[in-house]
Amino acid sequence: MSDQAASAETTMENLVALSKRRGFIFPSSEIYGGFNGFFDYGPLGSELKKNIRDCWWDDMVRRRDDIVGIETSIIMHPKVWQASGHVEGFTDPLVDCKASKVRYRADQLFFAAVVVEGSTVGYVSVLESERTTEELQEKAESMKRKKAVQGTLAPVVAKDMTEATDEEIPLIPSPATGEPGSLTPPRSFNMMFQTNVGAMTDGSSVAYLRPETAQGMFVDFKNVVDTGRVKLPFGIAQIGKSFRNEITPRNFIFRSREFEQMEMEYFIHEDADWEKEHKIWIQWCWDWLKSIGLPESHLSLFDHEKAKLAFYSSGTTDIMFKYPFGVQELWGIAARGNYDLTQHANASGKSHEIFDEATKKKFVPHVIEPAVGVDRIFLAILCAAYAEEEVTDDKGKTETRTVLRLSPRIAPVKVAVLPLLKNKEGLTNRAKALYKKLQRRYAVFYDEAGAIGRRYRRQDEIGTPWCVTIDFDTIEKEGDTFTLRERDSMAQRRITEAELLAMLDEQVY
Amino acid sequence: MSDQAASAETTMENLVALSKRRGFIFPSSEIYGGFNGFFDYGPLGSELKKNIRDCWWDDMVRRRDDIVGIETSIIMHPKVWQASGHVEGFTDPLVDCKASKVRYRADQLFFAAVVVEGSTVGYVSVLESERTTEELQEKAESMKRKKAVQGTLAPVVAKDMTEATDEEIPLIPSPATGEPGSLTPPRSFNMMFQTNVGAMTDGSSVAYLRPETAQGMFVDFKNVVDTGRVKLPFGIAQIGKSFRNEITPRNFIFRSREFEQMEMEYFIHEDADWEKEHKIWIQWCWDWLKSIGLPESHLSLFDHEKAKLAFYSSGTTDIMFKYPFGVQELWGIAARGNYDLTQHANASGKSHEIFDEATKKKFVPHVIEPAVGVDRIFLAILCAAYAEEEVTDDKGKTETRTVLRLSPRIAPVKVAVLPLLKNKEGLTNRAKALYKKLQRRYAVFYDEAGAIGRRYRRQDEIGTPWCVTIDFDTIEKEGDTFTLRERDSMAQRRITEAELLAMLDEQVY
Repeated sequence: MSDQAASAETTMENLVALSKRRGFIFPSSEIYGGFNGFFDYGPLGSELKKNIRDCWWDDMVRRRDDIVGIETSIIMHPKVWQASGHVEGFTDPLVDCKASKVRYRADQLFFAAVVVEGSTVGYVSVLESERTTEELQEKAESMKRKKAVQGTLAPVVAKDMTEATDEEIPLIPSPATGEPGSLTPPRSFNMMFQTNVGAMTDGSSVAYLRPETAQGMFVDFKNVVDTGRVKLPFGIAQIGKSFRNEITPRNFIFRSREFEQMEMEYFIHEDADWEKEHKIWIQWCWDWLKSIGLPESHLSLFDHEKAKLAFYSSGTTDIMFKYPFGVQELWGIAARGNYDLTQHANASGKSHEIFDEATKKKFVPHVIEPAVGVDRIFLAILCAAYAEEEVTDDKGKTETRTVLRLSPRIAPVKVAVLPLLKNKEGLTNRAKALYKKLQRRYAVFYDEAGAIGRRYRRQDEIGTPWCVTIDFDTIEKEGDTFTLRERDSMAQRRITEAELLAMLDEQVY
Repeated sequence: MSDQAASAETTMENLVALSKRRGFIFPSSEIYGGFNGFFDYGPLGSELKKNIRDCWWDDMVRRRDDIVGIETSIIMHPKVWQASGHVEGFTDPLVDCKASKVRYRADQLFFAAVVVEGSTVGYVSVLESERTTEELQEKAESMKRKKAVQGTLAPVVAKDMTEATDEEIPLIPSPATGEPGSLTPPRSFNMMFQTNVGAMTDGSSVAYLRPETAQGMFVDFKNVVDTGRVKLPFGIAQIGKSFRNEITPRNFIFRSREFEQMEMEYFIHEDADWEKEHKIWIQWCWDWLKSIGLPESHLSLFDHEKAKLAFYSSGTTDIMFKYPFGVQELWGIAARGNYDLTQHANASGKSHEIFDEATKKKFVPHVIEPAVGVDRIFLAILCAAYAEEEVTDDKGKTETRTVLRLSPRIAPVKVAVLPLLKNKEGLTNRAKALYKKLQRRYAVFYDEAGAIGRRYRRQDEIGTPWCVTIDFDTIEKEGDTFTLRERDSMAQRRITEAELLAMLDEQVY
């Protein structure tokens, strides 16, 4: 994928429209008006998503000797989430508007004092956006006009509701009503979805949908060690759905309520150089993102400040991606010490120590955790791959083509097989034979409808790396060659079936 | 997989023990005492499960031109489940014991009148088991003795609580207390797990975890038709987790509360011969089960009685499997008419009609639905594959080997690469080179620890179809051949790398 493809002008509107139009992503339950924070993946989207998962699983588990996979249940024993700290601490601060019954995330509801000539004449509030401060300034100016206050308005200082003092809260207007007096102080709201397991619906039956897959690896650590023939350092990896009751899901599939994670816990010796291991995993994740086609120009690293980390955490670095709505976290790589295993050992009474032959000592291993969301990768891929280009067709006419520059590893369709004409049996028979042969191993598409140029465009738009055209040279000349047309360069060349198969074997896996 | 392997003596105890011992399946949250109805898949189990899913997806979606895949969200708009009938009708009859607060599924709580010389002297009850009637008979005899009633005890007639009359209910003893008088009449209990989405926890925010994946295909039907270039007949397929709040989960992973489904909705013309399509799909499913190694001797068909079907259903046939606990449903193939699409069209106000070019008429397509659970297939495979055999080793000694006769398509490890000795660099280097080459494409395992016979046994037990041994002939003689040892026959022969690769390509995909 060339960096040029990832044009700065790719807008979320374009991506959402393409996703809908070509069957990548639909809003969940759309015929019922949609369901905020939930999405469905269509025919092409489900293939692309599966390819992301499969590439990760192949590279992270099957092609490594030191990592095993597991699949743990989404609903686990509620004690898991007590021990992990999620029941107590996995919360967002919420503010209620008592008048409208609307709730807000306190850290997304911004306010500012309206200060004229050093005196506070009132407060304004807005919901977080890309123009938070500008909007507050506009509202402040409007208030000054309405109140007919004379003097110079000071530039507003935006704060969110978690920073509001007890004195300020009653003075801040609710965005729902525009009037102050109805907002409550922020209170903690647990983001785990709750349900009840079994026939009872009292407190004894409360269980949670997991908000992360990682705890599955810690809770099954002992079982894996006892059965898996693993030796430090080793990893346990998992792919699966997680759920978070986000109050304000947003940015399409970037922050949704149901999402899919790919997490791996890499257990190391307590005396190991964790910083070295941490760096190795940051590099691995970075390289892997490149291997599925994300351009380095869109990636960056963000080291979390030590002071802001949880007490047990030695360091966390995020790989950031430049989305159209800003640079945001894509992949977090955390050094978590032995906190999680120790918590579960204490809560369950089961030892999580490993015996070290060298030192004859027992210890609880430390862990490095690379955690990434499939949906965030999916969105990053769409963002980076989407391009609209001016191209000139073979008649010299200029047109705009939409192209998804997807890596062959993850493209939902690897090859489109196109007979030049649909009413020539010699062409269609040869094309169908090739199609059937490729289909045994690869996701391929057969298309005989319309002009060849239009058929190329359809494939460009869904990111098919190669089109193979069966033309009269194929069936009339010696050598049984096809026209191979490359998506990105649009270059065409002759290729034999054997060459095609070798190229796919090389580039798709 | 030979039929002989699927010995009648395979017990659930053996399978559960192997699953735990070799890391196929663990109880969920085991360090916290487990969580009834939830299971985790370990290193080998997650591979086997992924292979089942991938085989199905390849055969059902990628290798067919008429079926597309989707992935819809687990939590959908609650109106979906009103329209589908699940809110109203997806219920189990429950009986409470008011004394002990224990709840029972009414259709699993059996009772019988104790009749001596034509007079009813009391009632006995038991929970359903393989010996329900025998246990009731024993309890009846015990009651007759205790009450010192003279005369002949009639054979008991077992009924479940859904068949109990209002007069009988107060006379039937609770299994928890042994005393009558505390059981309630059966009442409906909805099996969908409930949760609340968003910040509110009132009725307006209630949502459900899907109890089946199928409704995703119906709700997204319009989106797929509008974007997917599909033409009747065509199918929409999905793999994903579903959840049912079973009151009495049982038989290991056969009936659990969280499970994974592979469902496909095949849409046909309203005038199509549905019986023919239905038969085609029954055959397809049957053949597919054989392709992943299930022996026909364990399979049978069960046609549901027309009279007992839902009013909209034209016919349902189940492919049954002979589990150690009885012959049970594995794969249901249902002809559902156009009920689901019509329900969602009515509830959403969105048309689900398709325009037929031939007749110039609009109609709502009918559907054939093959629906199967990944976990049930997994269990069937373990049951059929597990064998304990008397074998004679090369020194003439007889021993018992445990072997899993897994099909190469789904075996978690395809090939084990074994250098004959671990302290000969010539052997280990050649072995590692082969291992690395195979690992790019296949799940393979490298093992140099222990006697070669013991290494074979370890692979037998996890179902690895082939072991490749790198021995002195490999490195000293011409031709670079290995010893290929086949799991089932235990036969050994020489093979070259090219032959090995060709065999894998042929048998694994």
